[in-house]
Amino acid sequence: MSERPSSFETVCWRDGAVVMLDQRLLPEIERYNTYEDAHGVAHAIRTMVIRGAPAIGVAAALGVALAATRTSGDARAVARAANDACDLLAATRPTAVNLFWALDRMRRRLSSSTSNDAVALRQALLAEALAIREEDIAMCRRMGSHGAALVPDGATILTHCNAGGLATAGHGTALGVVRSAVEQGKRVRVLADETRPLLQGARLTAWELARDGIPVTVIVDGAAASHLARGEIDMVVVGADRVAANGDFANKIGTLGVALAAAAHGVPFYVAAPWSTVDLATPDGAAIPIEERAADEVTHIHGRRVTPEGVPVRNPAFDVTPARLVTALITDRGLAQPPNAETIGRLAEGATP
Amino acid sequence: MSERPSSFETVCWRDGAVVMLDQRLLPEIERYNTYEDAHGVAHAIRTMVIRGAPAIGVAAALGVALAATRTSGDARAVARAANDACDLLAATRPTAVNLFWALDRMRRRLSSSTSNDAVALRQALLAEALAIREEDIAMCRRMGSHGAALVPDGATILTHCNAGGLATAGHGTALGVVRSAVEQGKRVRVLADETRPLLQGARLTAWELARDGIPVTVIVDGAAASHLARGEIDMVVVGADRVAANGDFANKIGTLGVALAAAAHGVPFYVAAPWSTVDLATPDGAAIPIEERAADEVTHIHGRRVTPEGVPVRNPAFDVTPARLVTALITDRGLAQPPNAETIGRLAEGATP
Repeated sequence: MSERPSSFETVCWRDGAVVMLDQRLLPEIERYNTYEDAHGVAHAIRTMVIRGAPAIGVAAALGVALAATRTSGDARAVARAANDACDLLAATRPTAVNLFWALDRMRRRLSSSTSNDAVALRQALLAEALAIREEDIAMCRRMGSHGAALVPDGATILTHCNAGGLATAGHGTALGVVRSAVEQGKRVRVLADETRPLLQGARLTAWELARDGIPVTVIVDGAAASHLARGEIDMVVVGADRVAANGDFANKIGTLGVALAAAAHGVPFYVAAPWSTVDLATPDGAAIPIEERAADEVTHIHGRRVTPEGVPVRNPAFDVTPARLVTALITDRGLAQPPNAETIGRLAEGATP
Repeated sequence: MSERPSSFETVCWRDGAVVMLDQRLLPEIERYNTYEDAHGVAHAIRTMVIRGAPAIGVAAALGVALAATRTSGDARAVARAANDACDLLAATRPTAVNLFWALDRMRRRLSSSTSNDAVALRQALLAEALAIREEDIAMCRRMGSHGAALVPDGATILTHCNAGGLATAGHGTALGVVRSAVEQGKRVRVLADETRPLLQGARLTAWELARDGIPVTVIVDGAAASHLARGEIDMVVVGADRVAANGDFANKIGTLGVALAAAAHGVPFYVAAPWSTVDLATPDGAAIPIEERAADEVTHIHGRRVTPEGVPVRNPAFDVTPARLVTALITDRGLAQPPNAETIGRLAEGATP
């Protein structure tokens, strides 16, 4: 088993600034943007320079560290800047729970600091954000190794959206399972839903798997059910933006349809998500707020109109899949198989079932 | 009840030529192309200037008439030209059974003609093609009136692809049901799947319903399951490219996923198709050939690449939905409710159940 380093950097700290791979330009252009303040980071999250629940959490934490390190003055000024950055960043995307989890950690670090030393406080906040980033990669690797055990050699794996290295600080959640299976020497191929409206499957999943030499084929979202019905798919694995206490989960719009089609054809359906995505305060899927994004994501593709002028659209960014359609929830703490209040409760207590 | 005339012409005969609305340019541009020979018509069908099983059948019949009327010489020369046109047009699209049905009718008309009079033969073939066109509109109206009875007042109706006036000579199959319900004074609104890869829902269904003043909202294909799960949809109605003897049917890729999601949430799912779409020689869905179209329909949108260079795609144009997911098959002969060998057999005998 060999751990392959990631061949790209999704979000990192470099020369006192936050650097992100601009995912809106992939696969055509690989451009890294540098952000010098928290407003820039918030705008990048809102406009989806970076996306994916874990990556958003890491970016937000680094955004808070950025606000702190760029603030001169005393510890109170640094704390105020960091707090303001938390408020600003919390308002970027409503569905991904990792965002709030990461910001809570930054706030806790902030309030636990009793030092009046501005330098020490800046360092502590940067260290916390960098720790969140490192832990994210480590979590993906643990999740990957738990999930890889579920992947048969020779499997064709369907995935939706991008729950990959690009959606995390590295390795990926759903694609982390794929990468870990490959590292174990298993031969796999991936079928990637293109994932309208923003085409994260066609653009991002295809790009990062091809880059790592893992065979990937793209299909339109509507084709998934047909490939499942034809027996061409051995398992489905997707990420999650929020997992409720009962195992219901929110993920990119289109996930529910894939889950229903997988269940109808007896194909195992897995959700790979770091424990930070599990929100025990959310009892079930009905309680998850669903972000409705701008109409032009649907009405225009590459700046050109595809719907008639004046015709309205609906654009929910996520849907909710009930736990009963999920074979297992794969987390860095282990599996909840099947996911329900009891199996998730056991993971919450730290035990690996 | 008032019969509203169609506000556009999908395919018609004008000044001795075949005229088609170029559906590739909608909704931005409403351009009518004139075809002077059968090769032009075949190319138009293959490149999807016109699409939709009934419209393809009408266009092909008119293409044969065009070949006949443009051939000088004796009746034998006219017959040869018409036969060659049938062969040429039969090779354009493999899944739509109406194409073969329409060409068979043209061939039968040809072989039943004992006249050595070239003028009479040309006239007979043109009359047959025009009859197919008129009958198509009449069939859609009968289908619409059978189907409209199933539409509750105030219904929100989900549809996939375009089974509208643009997919027929006029009125439409699935959208014919909607139009007939509106003509009966029912208030309905339509939710249209955009229908990747060619976006017939976003471009065509939205265009023709908006043009007729029927409220329509566009969603991405992946959103259909979520709207069904939220109880926002009262019924689904789609068209079909071929219905097998047991009620299984082929339709635009993505239909199966919608049918599975509708069944999972207890929402009635209807298929509206003229009797000419029912192929009693095809025992079940597994026997329906599925056209795989060019990769660039998936890899490029508006000429711009959306998948990474070198990454393969799959592009089946249709999928097969099993009869068990269909609440009723709506035909111009009446309903097969639920569709199965027995109910379809009764329609085949001409009885209206």
